Amino acid sequence: MSDTPDRVRFTTALHDRDAWSAAACSMDRAVKLIGKRSNMLLLREAYYGSTRFDEFVRRTGLSEPVVANELRHLVEEGLLTRVPYQDAGDRERLAYRLTDMGRDAFVPVVALMQWGDKWLAPEGPPVELSHSACGSAVTVSVRCTEGHDLTVRDVTVRPGRGATRRASTTSPH
Amino acid sequence: MSDTPDRVRFTTALHDRDAWSAAACSMDRAVKLIGKRSNMLLLREAYYGSTRFDEFVRRTGLSEPVVANELRHLVEEGLLTRVPYQDAGDRERLAYRLTDMGRDAFVPVVALMQWGDKWLAPEGPPVELSHSACGSAVTVSVRCTEGHDLTVRDVTVRPGRGATRRASTTSPH
Repeated sequence: MSDTPDRVRFTTALHDRDAWSAAACSMDRAVKLIGKRSNMLLLREAYYGSTRFDEFVRRTGLSEPVVANELRHLVEEGLLTRVPYQDAGDRERLAYRLTDMGRDAFVPVVALMQWGDKWLAPEGPPVELSHSACGSAVTVSVRCTEGHDLTVRDVTVRPGRGATRRASTTSPH
Repeated sequence: MSDTPDRVRFTTALHDRDAWSAAACSMDRAVKLIGKRSNMLLLREAYYGSTRFDEFVRRTGLSEPVVANELRHLVEEGLLTRVPYQDAGDRERLAYRLTDMGRDAFVPVVALMQWGDKWLAPEGPPVELSHSACGSAVTVSVRCTEGHDLTVRDVTVRPGRGATRRASTTSPH
């Protein structure tokens, strides 16, 4: 169909795509954990500075039960942690703070935002991100550790430490 | 709660988070369009070289009706395009190829994979991505165009061309 196929290359061990299972795929695990729209909106608001339950409700437009449920999910899965706070004359309440794991999800969240800006915002991006220190525009890119920018065509996939092979490689399914 | 809050900064125009709506958020649009697990798995298999319906079914583990439905969705939304092909002695069929829009979603997909590798794969990453040309490991990072690596704390948000403000900025909700 084309001389330059739109696909990653596989090392010999993975060459027959039907001989190995992607069931343990980290992308799939990530999507199962935080792929839900409600989770993504709550993370966005955490990056935008929300820490309190009522802020998350007001700024995401989600219902209180959904926010309560999904904040609990994000705490249980380790992306947020609960910290007590107390306003003057009020009872103690719980605020939500990002953990390292939650902070790290900034990369896929900004990657999705950038993709949406490019392909789904004909009127232009609703917000623009810049580096506070130098003022330059923020971008998310796939690169190698040598600094080369990469597309899907430049990437090779090999089995990792957590690889699992199907029982039989001669009978793909 | 902390001297270095885990949040982006806002320019003056956005300083009061309750005074503007994130309803047009590009991240939210992206999640609505491709955030579903079935869509993500189909994109992954397209990056892994699948073009034919039966390949998508076999390699994602999704049911035929789901694959048919979600491939149609990805074609309608512009990430895949249908191309006729014909095996010897067989009737003409349709194959699915990535468009520029679909190829571009490689960035958020690899960003999610990298996050999952780091936080959800205690046994190690199931696959490892490298730059075919130089062999170096693949990473996804948030940077500015000057090349500085950024975390959520280094980023400032300002209104973009597609910004919409709430009708009243004095009554946040």
